[in-house]
Amino acid sequence: MKIALLQLNPTVGDLPGNSALIASAARRAAGADLAVTSELALMGYPPRDLLLNADFVERSWLVLRDLAHDLADLSPILVGLAEPNPGEAGRPLFNSAALLREGKVERTFKKTLLPTYDVFDEDRYFEPTAESELLELGTTVLGISICEDIWNDRDQWLHRRYHTNPVQELVEAGAKAIINLSASPFTAGKQKHREAMLSHLAKKYRVPFFYVNQVGGNDDLVFDGRSSVFDGNGRLAARARGFEEDLIVADMANLVDRAAAIAKDDFTPESEIWRALVLGTRDYVHKCGFSEVLLGLSGGIDSSLVAAVAVSALGPQNVLGVLMPSPYTSPQSVQDAMALAHNLGIKTLTLNITDIMNSFDRELAKPFRGLPKDVTEENIQARIRGNLLMALSNKFGLVLLTTGNKSELAVGYCTIYGDMSGGLAVISDVPKTAVYRLAKWLNARGSEIIPDAVLHKAPTAELRFHQTDQDSLPPYEVLDDILERYIERHQSKEELFAQGFEKTMVERVLCLVKSAEFKRRQAAPGLKVTDRAFGSGWRMPVASRAW
Amino acid sequence: MKIALLQLNPTVGDLPGNSALIASAARRAAGADLAVTSELALMGYPPRDLLLNADFVERSWLVLRDLAHDLADLSPILVGLAEPNPGEAGRPLFNSAALLREGKVERTFKKTLLPTYDVFDEDRYFEPTAESELLELGTTVLGISICEDIWNDRDQWLHRRYHTNPVQELVEAGAKAIINLSASPFTAGKQKHREAMLSHLAKKYRVPFFYVNQVGGNDDLVFDGRSSVFDGNGRLAARARGFEEDLIVADMANLVDRAAAIAKDDFTPESEIWRALVLGTRDYVHKCGFSEVLLGLSGGIDSSLVAAVAVSALGPQNVLGVLMPSPYTSPQSVQDAMALAHNLGIKTLTLNITDIMNSFDRELAKPFRGLPKDVTEENIQARIRGNLLMALSNKFGLVLLTTGNKSELAVGYCTIYGDMSGGLAVISDVPKTAVYRLAKWLNARGSEIIPDAVLHKAPTAELRFHQTDQDSLPPYEVLDDILERYIERHQSKEELFAQGFEKTMVERVLCLVKSAEFKRRQAAPGLKVTDRAFGSGWRMPVASRAW
Repeated sequence: MKIALLQLNPTVGDLPGNSALIASAARRAAGADLAVTSELALMGYPPRDLLLNADFVERSWLVLRDLAHDLADLSPILVGLAEPNPGEAGRPLFNSAALLREGKVERTFKKTLLPTYDVFDEDRYFEPTAESELLELGTTVLGISICEDIWNDRDQWLHRRYHTNPVQELVEAGAKAIINLSASPFTAGKQKHREAMLSHLAKKYRVPFFYVNQVGGNDDLVFDGRSSVFDGNGRLAARARGFEEDLIVADMANLVDRAAAIAKDDFTPESEIWRALVLGTRDYVHKCGFSEVLLGLSGGIDSSLVAAVAVSALGPQNVLGVLMPSPYTSPQSVQDAMALAHNLGIKTLTLNITDIMNSFDRELAKPFRGLPKDVTEENIQARIRGNLLMALSNKFGLVLLTTGNKSELAVGYCTIYGDMSGGLAVISDVPKTAVYRLAKWLNARGSEIIPDAVLHKAPTAELRFHQTDQDSLPPYEVLDDILERYIERHQSKEELFAQGFEKTMVERVLCLVKSAEFKRRQAAPGLKVTDRAFGSGWRMPVASRAW
Repeated sequence: MKIALLQLNPTVGDLPGNSALIASAARRAAGADLAVTSELALMGYPPRDLLLNADFVERSWLVLRDLAHDLADLSPILVGLAEPNPGEAGRPLFNSAALLREGKVERTFKKTLLPTYDVFDEDRYFEPTAESELLELGTTVLGISICEDIWNDRDQWLHRRYHTNPVQELVEAGAKAIINLSASPFTAGKQKHREAMLSHLAKKYRVPFFYVNQVGGNDDLVFDGRSSVFDGNGRLAARARGFEEDLIVADMANLVDRAAAIAKDDFTPESEIWRALVLGTRDYVHKCGFSEVLLGLSGGIDSSLVAAVAVSALGPQNVLGVLMPSPYTSPQSVQDAMALAHNLGIKTLTLNITDIMNSFDRELAKPFRGLPKDVTEENIQARIRGNLLMALSNKFGLVLLTTGNKSELAVGYCTIYGDMSGGLAVISDVPKTAVYRLAKWLNARGSEIIPDAVLHKAPTAELRFHQTDQDSLPPYEVLDDILERYIERHQSKEELFAQGFEKTMVERVLCLVKSAEFKRRQAAPGLKVTDRAFGSGWRMPVASRAW
């Protein structure tokens, strides 16, 4: 039996578009005995509160029936979508896979384990099934699982989030292979864990696994594909490409020794994050209905890296770099920004903000009545720049990319409505030290993209004379270490002290993180690449007191 | 047996402060046989992802033990907080009520039904209990329930969200009264439903109910208190005040005929929303550690109402009104804004933005190369005003209140980083037609607050000459009707057509709602007063396609 894994890039809510994607891939897989999409593929994952619009779910079923009709001449296909719960109690929907066969929607298979943590909200919409969902196809019994259903094996977790293990139940009910429709978002290094887990499960239960993942960016989430197949000995038998659409067909009767079916997965930590950022940026811009972007170029490392991502995602002709020097901008910064633009082959525009700054100063002279300059005047500059960038965005229909990194966003070293302005925060989940690593990796790939000077000068916001980031922040190596432990690994103050971090520094950093909550609440969506990003997986109160 | 209901206003995360509140109220209730707080009272509801910081939960238990020790001389007290789940599987915590008795934390009672819809995310944190949680106190058996536990009775819902009914199970297990620790956020008109439900349950199961609600604002949520007691015949026996802290003690042996124990609940639709906005604004500002606010005064109805709310919340001496006229601002608008400020007794500051506008125009002349003026130039003005307001906020430590209403936010009739700037969106869940009703109600209370001219002129953003809102929007009566049906009642396009709304108008409005998603993603927290507010209960994708 041949199983086709349709690794597609659906757009959330685009039912006809997603249906067409599925139909086209199913036709390309025409020789297979069963084709399988990723989770909720017809709707695009995550559809979020579109699921609460009853007519969205209704229409998806009309589209599904049309799709079944269109594909009546093909072998059966499993398509992910939400299904109304007809029961008299429970959540309104199931997270289902519909079996299309001979022109009809024959039946559905439902998800058991519903992730409700980090960026996931599935208990908000879905009722779990307690059934073991088996599909008899010819003489083969397939166990149908959806994403999280395979992520609760006792061997994999010190503490399991759920009380049942659908994989074990499927096998005990007679499944001879496990199909899994997934929408598993990218985080750096996750594929290793996925494959180790799939391999372990296949070996433990002595059944092959067919894991189909979504690919593409949807708002803050990037799905990296890399769908894969393991034989019943836990050996990798096939793998789809990362970060692009792909189609693999695997023959259950002959799963081993097919190196040609295994797409390379030789990403470095840098190249993997780079691909995620490029895909996430491209899809955000395109799925919002745009093709061009702009961003402010300061001559610093962050905007340089974001410009390079944008060029890779959209092409140099679709990226506009805007220089907005003030009296505090050094000639070196302008030179570095222009060199970067030259290296990338993008257009630039220079708008000097000095006159506008002066007009603000004049208007505020009276209320500020000679008070000393402080962060207020720095923020005014950042907001003038935000206003200019948004004006260009509005006038010419370009998406503004915001360029702040995770370290800055964590401690609030950024101006709300200023440099935080934009439709997408490309690197807001990339810590500053990783920004440097990515820039160096990028340059090492071939010719110099990020000017060498940018890599070696001290980071500065240039909002006053002789300012550097390190005036008010710990060294980035230390800061990023503390932040990662606190944000991603949930370490407490006491644990940080025990690691040898200086007490006052830890307390200051955590206090800054808390104080910046009101800014982050209004931040642009940012591409998630770590285990815990600010955004939909970080839900902190604003008006609260530290304990 | 006398039961004391401690209706308190905790601050999220403020463990020592909340503990002190509880201790003080418990001492005032010293004659009671049992004192009861609201849900998670020690932590403040909703603690959100603070719950994922293990040391927050640990510290709350240290504080709880201290509290038990401090109150060792009093009768038992039930205190709400989160409790680690020691099981080898399941969510990390329970949503519990801890019984403090004789200086010790004696035991806990756990929540069964975990709301995960609208603004609620409890499945993210909590494991449900399947136990019926009974407390034997002297000769009386009390059924202990937490908030949602009492909201799933078959008689109350066409479709129940959960499969069990803890109230019924508690009664069947022997409970002679039901205690309920709640944190039930305000929405307009909700108290009627709560009391009808409590009355029905009390009568149906023939047991008295003791319902303790939280009071106070926490970010977008306002808790309205109005804790209440029903006897076993379903008659209201006691009610705490709305929108303020209160303490009621009810004697189970003598629950009827105590009119003096029933706080008036004679709110009109307008006065109820007003109280919620005032409380929400006051608590947001204070719980963020501020005492003063500023806002832009345009002479329009929205900023006038928000100024009035701010004055009621914080006192006129703590409110600064900023006028920022441009060449498009009519003398009437300035006059109306000044009249409002006079009526409210607040300070004003006038900053003319014409020179700053001109400096932007000069700098953008070249890139804009003679293109016609459009919404770009309007947004520039709004963002200049946002920048000035934030500059004053930064320099003087004032919280900026943003003044947009729900109708505008729904259709995107507002400028991101412009008039949307601010720490709190006071009326972002109040539709425009309700803004008028509130303003008229306010004036009818006594002397004129909102100048009569403001109530009667056509609404305008004054971002170009001869502009009125109705140039680009349907009449607000129609718009608000469509929006309420779509947003709060989840009606589909087809249902709206069937109601007689013009097809092109409905499609245009829903298209505007979708297009404004990127703005709302970056909106300030707004006080929820309707069944569905934008914010934590509205989770829509940005990069999606309409279906």
